[in-house]
Amino acid sequence: MAPHANETSSNNNGHDATPQPQQPHRPSQRASAKGGPKILPPGCSEENFTSFLDAARKLVEDDNVFLIELDHNLIDGDYMQPCKGHDMHAIVDREYFVASATVSPRDVPEVQELMRLCNKHEIPVWPFSIGRNTGYGGAAPRVPGSVCMDLGKHMNKVLDVNVEGAYALVEPGVTFFDLHEYLEERNLREKVWLDVPDLGGGSIIGNAVERGVGYTPYGDHWMMHCGMEVVLPNGDLIRTGMGALPDPTVSKDPNLRPDQQPGNRCWQLFNYGFGPYNDGIFTQSSLGIVVKMGIWLMPNPGGYQAYMITLPRDEDLHAAMDIIRPLRMQMVLQNVPTLRHILLDAAVYGNKKSYSSSDKPLTDEELDEIAKKLDLGRWNFYGAVYGPEPIRNVLLSVIKQSFLSIPGARFWLPEDRKEPNSVLHTRSNTLQGIPSVDELKWVDWLPNGAHLFFSPITKISGDDAMLQYSVTKKRCVEAGLDFIGTFVVGMREMHHIVCIVFNREDHESKKKAHWLIRTLIQDCAEHGWGEYRTHLALMDQIAKTYNFNDNAQMKLNERIKDALDPKGVLAPGKNGIWPKGYDKEAWAIPSE
Amino acid sequence: MAPHANETSSNNNGHDATPQPQQPHRPSQRASAKGGPKILPPGCSEENFTSFLDAARKLVEDDNVFLIELDHNLIDGDYMQPCKGHDMHAIVDREYFVASATVSPRDVPEVQELMRLCNKHEIPVWPFSIGRNTGYGGAAPRVPGSVCMDLGKHMNKVLDVNVEGAYALVEPGVTFFDLHEYLEERNLREKVWLDVPDLGGGSIIGNAVERGVGYTPYGDHWMMHCGMEVVLPNGDLIRTGMGALPDPTVSKDPNLRPDQQPGNRCWQLFNYGFGPYNDGIFTQSSLGIVVKMGIWLMPNPGGYQAYMITLPRDEDLHAAMDIIRPLRMQMVLQNVPTLRHILLDAAVYGNKKSYSSSDKPLTDEELDEIAKKLDLGRWNFYGAVYGPEPIRNVLLSVIKQSFLSIPGARFWLPEDRKEPNSVLHTRSNTLQGIPSVDELKWVDWLPNGAHLFFSPITKISGDDAMLQYSVTKKRCVEAGLDFIGTFVVGMREMHHIVCIVFNREDHESKKKAHWLIRTLIQDCAEHGWGEYRTHLALMDQIAKTYNFNDNAQMKLNERIKDALDPKGVLAPGKNGIWPKGYDKEAWAIPSE
Repeated sequence: MAPHANETSSNNNGHDATPQPQQPHRPSQRASAKGGPKILPPGCSEENFTSFLDAARKLVEDDNVFLIELDHNLIDGDYMQPCKGHDMHAIVDREYFVASATVSPRDVPEVQELMRLCNKHEIPVWPFSIGRNTGYGGAAPRVPGSVCMDLGKHMNKVLDVNVEGAYALVEPGVTFFDLHEYLEERNLREKVWLDVPDLGGGSIIGNAVERGVGYTPYGDHWMMHCGMEVVLPNGDLIRTGMGALPDPTVSKDPNLRPDQQPGNRCWQLFNYGFGPYNDGIFTQSSLGIVVKMGIWLMPNPGGYQAYMITLPRDEDLHAAMDIIRPLRMQMVLQNVPTLRHILLDAAVYGNKKSYSSSDKPLTDEELDEIAKKLDLGRWNFYGAVYGPEPIRNVLLSVIKQSFLSIPGARFWLPEDRKEPNSVLHTRSNTLQGIPSVDELKWVDWLPNGAHLFFSPITKISGDDAMLQYSVTKKRCVEAGLDFIGTFVVGMREMHHIVCIVFNREDHESKKKAHWLIRTLIQDCAEHGWGEYRTHLALMDQIAKTYNFNDNAQMKLNERIKDALDPKGVLAPGKNGIWPKGYDKEAWAIPSE
Repeated sequence: MAPHANETSSNNNGHDATPQPQQPHRPSQRASAKGGPKILPPGCSEENFTSFLDAARKLVEDDNVFLIELDHNLIDGDYMQPCKGHDMHAIVDREYFVASATVSPRDVPEVQELMRLCNKHEIPVWPFSIGRNTGYGGAAPRVPGSVCMDLGKHMNKVLDVNVEGAYALVEPGVTFFDLHEYLEERNLREKVWLDVPDLGGGSIIGNAVERGVGYTPYGDHWMMHCGMEVVLPNGDLIRTGMGALPDPTVSKDPNLRPDQQPGNRCWQLFNYGFGPYNDGIFTQSSLGIVVKMGIWLMPNPGGYQAYMITLPRDEDLHAAMDIIRPLRMQMVLQNVPTLRHILLDAAVYGNKKSYSSSDKPLTDEELDEIAKKLDLGRWNFYGAVYGPEPIRNVLLSVIKQSFLSIPGARFWLPEDRKEPNSVLHTRSNTLQGIPSVDELKWVDWLPNGAHLFFSPITKISGDDAMLQYSVTKKRCVEAGLDFIGTFVVGMREMHHIVCIVFNREDHESKKKAHWLIRTLIQDCAEHGWGEYRTHLALMDQIAKTYNFNDNAQMKLNERIKDALDPKGVLAPGKNGIWPKGYDKEAWAIPSE
């Protein structure tokens, strides 16, 4: 990536380091002085950057500004270093998606002030909550050299858990584990359950605003959010929904800042408020930083039973889907169940080498052998029923009767599985909102395992699932990779999650994975399928597939972006939306 | 209302009728020539208006442009005249909230072209679907003299009903009755049910985008929408969610316009798409005109039973609410049930005169007498259970056991009620998605009955409900009006709907009703309660109560409004949002 010459020269001739109007932003120059940053923000002089850092240090104190220096070693696969603002599963050069610095505000006014500072210095800022976001870019910014804002380091409080209203109000740093532990410690799980995704280490807010999913009846995290507090790109602070309505009956301390004032009593009870319902524009978005969010908890259903149904043949996917659709829509399947390919389970139990000496994609025969060895099916369906026993019994009898019409299908309860670290045991926890990190293990399928998620949306139907499976599997095989995937069943569609595992120390393996996901995006677009979420490196490509009527939606997104963030400082490029000050072609991801 | 002098004089000196930049818009001059309009759009010369009408007639043909002439008689209470762009339940002078003309586009390109025309002529346009919206302003525009756009007259097709995916795709003119009949005619109710509000004559799109509710498990219509096509203020056409992703596998006729192209196969299956989720900004909004919308249908649950529980005493409201909350959150109450005050039911069976010769608010004794006469409670709870018999039995036994702990509570099935036009029979239809207009009858409680809805949100709790009931009832009595209301129970909150019935031919009665709603808004704001929706005349007042952090939300709304609609032509003033070209203080509603 060539440094862009001279674009900051107008800032070098005085002590006022605020940049003047300039050419469109293009990729930044690399810094060169040892002890200096690896990279500067785009269009930013060293003087301006230094001046920004000084102001930031003054604001949040020295400990909370972390400069990513030239000689910093960015460690792939290291989940614990979001402060280094990079992608722990780098799919391109690991020094590409990297921040210039990370700043950790201690409270909401500091978030607001940081936004004002970024505007003043015209420095792009990339907020993250915890920075896990594995498979989608970790803590890394879309624009190299952005300043990362690490919200979770300090802003990590459970502000409220209300059992009567069955909700929590949390800050960005609260993980699923944190809230779960909060409930456990207070014996509140007898009353309310949390919904958790596969891995419990991520931020509740981060997951919901990226529209991630979990597996209980409350699996659509965005649907189950209620009420937000958001810092806008200009530093303004809003509360959405009923939160915009002060509650004069709650006594307010005049010494408290707006963000510390207790919210309206209905803030976490009713989403819509009055007038335009704005919450959605702050998801997968660069329009605001969510600093508080309500999330609905599920009242303890009064009974629970997880189960697994194993299906022996590859083509059973077809019959299973046509069974699942009506059951799910009728709410006989009350939660978000999953139909997992054998290799996703197998990879939790061991790496590829433990099953085969082949370095090619495994054949059908090899998959059958693995299934036999593990006493699993080619596809394995994980579900649960919720409620008092008579209700569970009615539901389970319908579910069993439906699935067991597939020849060779077998029904399992957790107690039927004796193997250590049983996936069914893990799922039995996940499906009742008990978080874990057990499923991290499948990333080790290959040596130095790292992964990317490819996640197209599809109809719940045998024909659609088979077609999407065959299209994606074919390309995996072409890339020399195993197909590892799961169908996550929503209300009327599925998130088909294809886990692209690659060897992060093997340039060829990374190249193949990158080729694979680019090709899958294109293949799927040709079938009319689009992805719900993606890694930084693929955002532009996917955004371009959502192009109805000459990209009318993108034009709308850009108009709103430019209105709320005229200097384009908040998360430029996120989900393919580039502010007017950016030359978007110049930011295409280097292909290797 | 005084005419505003000279503000259009700059447009009178040439044949180019396009207005020049001018002073902020203020209320318009009344026209005076017989045969001319009752009122001109604000800041619009007669020449500009004539030029606009000529262009509109050329576009949509003469029959579809209706000029509201000076001598047109606007009939209060006439549900059939939305073409006259007025409020059939006028709370202020019936000639105040009135359009200059109504234009009925025949298809989406005409909607787009009309928006361009309104921009060119700087004429405010107020879209409506069917124009019922009773209690909230009917078909009338917020800004007198706006041109109303009557979407429903021609754009009234059920575009798709998909049983497998359980959804419909409709145009703005499709009413709940229309879609119900569509399902009935094709015997599709065996497969899928519609959710309907109390009155079936309104537009499905209109209701959902105003965030209206129904009473089945799919009662939150906005939550159950999926995918929209929207004309933006500049005439651009977008599809939201998966609709932004073309489906190349569906053969497209190159002769079809964009809005006629079949949508993506997942358009009605998955709401969120990729990037910011924009749908919500088009609700209660002036940012776009929804011309197509998907709505999820409920799979036939395989069994159904409506019921009523009568509660004898006023204070039973308290116990009932604390019973309802946990049952609703546990989904033992699966749908949106209602707890109705005796007078709402009584008013369906007869007018006030049929019960009492009093013209004062009825006393507790009189209410008890009415309840006795009708064999009802002071409060009456209407619910239903859904599913196969074993499931219904479990749920009903819990429900009965819980409510019958209230002394004097009685449980009724529809067959227990023999009276003609039984409310329970009507509710039994409504709660399974069979529309009716039976509940129009309560508007006739007073002679020349008209009504306003006052609809604050509250927590589902005995204390909150009792407090809100006492606060609202007290003011009703002060206004000399009967309290008529119902608590509509959502997922975690209630829409408390207070039906303010007044005599539309009695100036004093209107004045009292207007005083009452203004006072209730203020009282409730002082208790920390806000309304979910309102009549045109109260939009500014309510918007001002949602004022957290120095009206930060309104500033956000205004920034987005001005970015998407720089000339402020689409529905200025809607829900209190005024475009930058408007002097908002000048548009305050005349108090009488």
